[in-house]
Amino acid sequence: MSPLTYRDAGVNIDAGNRAVELMREAVRRTYGPEVIRGIGAFGGLYDASALRGMAAPVLVASTDGVGTKTKLAASLERYDTVGQDLVNHCINDILVQGARPLFFLDYFAAAKLDPKIVAEVVGGCAVACRRAGSALLGGETAEMPGVYAPGEFDLAGTIVGVVERDQVIDGSTVQAGDVLIGLESSGLHTNGYSLARRLCAGQNMWIFRMELGMSLLGGLLAVHRSYLPHVTALRAAGIELRGLAHITGGGLVENVPRIIPPGLGVAIRLGSWPIPPLFTWLQRAGNVPDGDMRRTFNLGVGLVAVMPPAQVDAALTVLRDPALAGDAWRIGEVVPGGGVAFV
Amino acid sequence: MSPLTYRDAGVNIDAGNRAVELMREAVRRTYGPEVIRGIGAFGGLYDASALRGMAAPVLVASTDGVGTKTKLAASLERYDTVGQDLVNHCINDILVQGARPLFFLDYFAAAKLDPKIVAEVVGGCAVACRRAGSALLGGETAEMPGVYAPGEFDLAGTIVGVVERDQVIDGSTVQAGDVLIGLESSGLHTNGYSLARRLCAGQNMWIFRMELGMSLLGGLLAVHRSYLPHVTALRAAGIELRGLAHITGGGLVENVPRIIPPGLGVAIRLGSWPIPPLFTWLQRAGNVPDGDMRRTFNLGVGLVAVMPPAQVDAALTVLRDPALAGDAWRIGEVVPGGGVAFV
Repeated sequence: MSPLTYRDAGVNIDAGNRAVELMREAVRRTYGPEVIRGIGAFGGLYDASALRGMAAPVLVASTDGVGTKTKLAASLERYDTVGQDLVNHCINDILVQGARPLFFLDYFAAAKLDPKIVAEVVGGCAVACRRAGSALLGGETAEMPGVYAPGEFDLAGTIVGVVERDQVIDGSTVQAGDVLIGLESSGLHTNGYSLARRLCAGQNMWIFRMELGMSLLGGLLAVHRSYLPHVTALRAAGIELRGLAHITGGGLVENVPRIIPPGLGVAIRLGSWPIPPLFTWLQRAGNVPDGDMRRTFNLGVGLVAVMPPAQVDAALTVLRDPALAGDAWRIGEVVPGGGVAFV
Repeated sequence: MSPLTYRDAGVNIDAGNRAVELMREAVRRTYGPEVIRGIGAFGGLYDASALRGMAAPVLVASTDGVGTKTKLAASLERYDTVGQDLVNHCINDILVQGARPLFFLDYFAAAKLDPKIVAEVVGGCAVACRRAGSALLGGETAEMPGVYAPGEFDLAGTIVGVVERDQVIDGSTVQAGDVLIGLESSGLHTNGYSLARRLCAGQNMWIFRMELGMSLLGGLLAVHRSYLPHVTALRAAGIELRGLAHITGGGLVENVPRIIPPGLGVAIRLGSWPIPPLFTWLQRAGNVPDGDMRRTFNLGVGLVAVMPPAQVDAALTVLRDPALAGDAWRIGEVVPGGGVAFV
């Protein structure tokens, strides 16, 4: 009988090791003095002595993926942005509870590992981690023959951050009359890609389109915006943030109610912010019902901040600082009742 | 044009929500008083005030998957064990650095979500978390049409634990003459499944096999053992653990050297522990070379502890307590030089 090896079974340990070699430097550049051991160890070690100086430290953790944006990236062979998407998505998920990131870990898996692709994807994670002052403390790269479709990959990540207990933002103080400020998204962020890819089937993704002001590729691969600088600036200006919602899967319809106390709802004014042409184009391409658009896409609003009416002007002044990416608008109010009404 | 919806594109938001409903109770049972907010929040909130009482708290984090053990589970439609595999794998990865788990987050993805399967898999995570005193603080369930092969799924997780800085185990104090104690594995744990599945192709997985003392199914789906109770007992007995290696992908050959300082190697005595019949059966089934067996499978040793010779008898007495699962053996020594020699 001819011998069967691990490599015959579709697993190439050397490819995994080579990927680690290629990404090592990018990962190391995310390390601050808190990282005691990182890449290569069974687990990453992060010095948490700083938490001893806090009154009541709360760790905030979130795991997320980037959905089938990976599939789009794979089909276009553009691997440098999805890692940034992932990290920024995770940052926003803990940011809305008031936390700042400490460290991040990634998970990359494919039927067959291409060390160069892995290193590009993880390199993107490292870029976004550095920008956020977060360490890329660890990760896992898995070769899974037969589980993934050929040429496809998946990418998930986990972020851990910290917040003082009395600084946790959870929407519990939201009141009727409070105002919803919408912060501009950079595009689809990481939601709705299964639908978006269907809607773009057969289209040339590379050509410039007058109606979008860019190519479909440029629009669809735009990096998920991190709102860490925006929220940091709002807090520094003393704005009372009663609730923050990251507009991910489920859109405004499902994500805003997550921070609204029982007995209250929100009225969102259509027309109070410009829906970017990419969303209008996608809706028209598939005759997608309004309800599906609102429940699938962020429609141009990536984060919603709830605050007392008296603070709105100050908040908008902060958010419109040209140093912060994107615009911001007053998009609605908290009202007695429940649910989300578009008016 | 007939309208295209998110569901038409292969994504069913309701299936994801239903999965969350089904798993909610199992997840909640893992919560201690430290969990401020768990399932349903953008990020899980964990009270870390206890860290303020530590001299120099170090957070230890690790992300891992269970490899193509998911594929085996899917083909056999047994979904309750891989979640336990995953959590125990992660626990061992931080345990070998001296840390005890605080909380865990899971990531589940498939081409199409079956809420019952998701709930069974995550329920398995919850069982193992509870046993380890770890909270299942959060997770993500993703529907990725076209990325995963039909019927397949992937499962990854991240664990975060804590250790006092002066209690970190990193192998730096390992010396020539130190002894390697091997702790028995429960089976393949979570490594080598791509090869193992090839070797079992065409076999009846359900029938009892005299030579294995069980069915192939029973052998291959045996839950990855957590060594948290063993290491806790060794520490309670005052055993000086100079190094701990979790024997994962790469086997003894690649994992033991990770905790051996430069200038030193290890001699591992073949025959000093019984290689379980499952491994012998797999090797024979595919005429697998010894080198591939050693670099792919744990061969019956799931954890290696390095300690001074004077402590070996006491350690073996602790480890052979019937309350702790599995046997333990003296399997080798640290020697001058480098690498791993099988003698």
